[in-house]
Amino acid sequence: VRNILPKLKDKRFFQKLREFNLQMTREKIKASVSEDNLITQSISTIRDLEKSINLLEKRLREWYGLYNPEFTMEMGHLKFTEIILNKSKEQLLSEIHREDSMGADLAKEDLEAVMEFAKSLLQLQKQKADTEQYLERLMKRHCPNINELAGTTIAAELLSHLGSLRKFAITPASTIQILGAEKALFRHLKTGARPPKYGILFSHPFVQEGKRPDQGKRARALADKLAIAARIDFFKGEFLADKLKKQLEGKFS
Amino acid sequence: VRNILPKLKDKRFFQKLREFNLQMTREKIKASVSEDNLITQSISTIRDLEKSINLLEKRLREWYGLYNPEFTMEMGHLKFTEIILNKSKEQLLSEIHREDSMGADLAKEDLEAVMEFAKSLLQLQKQKADTEQYLERLMKRHCPNINELAGTTIAAELLSHLGSLRKFAITPASTIQILGAEKALFRHLKTGARPPKYGILFSHPFVQEGKRPDQGKRARALADKLAIAARIDFFKGEFLADKLKKQLEGKFS
Repeated sequence: VRNILPKLKDKRFFQKLREFNLQMTREKIKASVSEDNLITQSISTIRDLEKSINLLEKRLREWYGLYNPEFTMEMGHLKFTEIILNKSKEQLLSEIHREDSMGADLAKEDLEAVMEFAKSLLQLQKQKADTEQYLERLMKRHCPNINELAGTTIAAELLSHLGSLRKFAITPASTIQILGAEKALFRHLKTGARPPKYGILFSHPFVQEGKRPDQGKRARALADKLAIAARIDFFKGEFLADKLKKQLEGKFS
Repeated sequence: VRNILPKLKDKRFFQKLREFNLQMTREKIKASVSEDNLITQSISTIRDLEKSINLLEKRLREWYGLYNPEFTMEMGHLKFTEIILNKSKEQLLSEIHREDSMGADLAKEDLEAVMEFAKSLLQLQKQKADTEQYLERLMKRHCPNINELAGTTIAAELLSHLGSLRKFAITPASTIQILGAEKALFRHLKTGARPPKYGILFSHPFVQEGKRPDQGKRARALADKLAIAARIDFFKGEFLADKLKKQLEGKFS
């Protein structure tokens, strides 16, 4: 061994070796950032935006409610921000067939403060939509089959739960089926309670469509196809999601 | 009695009475929205914006960290969003004396998605600053003395805690002193633990300045002056906050 390392005592040799190692590690770390990471960050951003938007929209309703309580109460969640920004109090009241309002007549400056807040909220909702579109493009590029089968949001949620497409491809269908239901799974293992039938997949339209006793089976069948899709995507196979989808729907009709 | 209500059986009379009553109630509700409500909504909005900004900024750091981890780690909380929007990765790395980065070279589209998110966050931070300014104007108009003595944020917090300026004016100083420390107060009453010395007032610079054993006394003295200021403000007295402030500072120097 001593012969192979003739410059063992040469300081400069070790310094070079160290530098070379550091450089290699840096490059490995750099290369380790993959589309999986981008997808995970995007879906987490969407979730965080959702949380913030819910919090701020509740606040906006309360604040704007001082000015126009009747409309605030009758209006559902959808597009509230957009509507109050585009229509005056009178217009909104006439739409719900009320003539006068119990709301205060706010001074111009006070009303402007609420409206500015509403504008910021609208901008945040737009940001959420933009990030969703970006995520969809990412998913179509990275794993078109999973994306088509599960839908962008659910597919990204599953992927970020597993950490990478590689992991997705080697995960059995039975695990995919109950991803996101870890709490129920461990309760089952610990206390013998009934095992969960679905986790993240529960919100998929295909599972939602089914009647109660069928939903577990549907989640299972969907997970089966997703496991196949993940392997196709990981090994850069062709686009087969439409066929898988048809097989899936044929099974339950 | 029957003589005084001659039209007791006249349906139209009761209908009129009912309508009149409804109208009166509506007007009372309308008139009950006061600046107190606007202040409460504004300070709550600021708190909600703070929460959202913290959540989203943490996310931005993680996402942007894929691209430029060295800078993300070394940079403090302050103005992170603004800085990464205005300077390129190379500029930022040279500022912290690094040549190369372990961060990934993101494609143009991927980098744009992060940057768009950062812009939305910046807009939200601006919204928070705007609401703070609006709140300050409100407070100066509604209760200039409290505002001057306690500072806008703390004053608004106290006011929204109490519900109205009227309530503030009739609250004893000892209560003002420990507002926001209800948990500690009830623990004291229940178990005999030490009573709290301060609640919301703890973050006031005047209390912060003092040394540990003095902080309770300082909170008490500040609460005394605030109780006086609240009465002046409620009865629309003149501006005396500067005098109260001097008395307060004279006591502890």
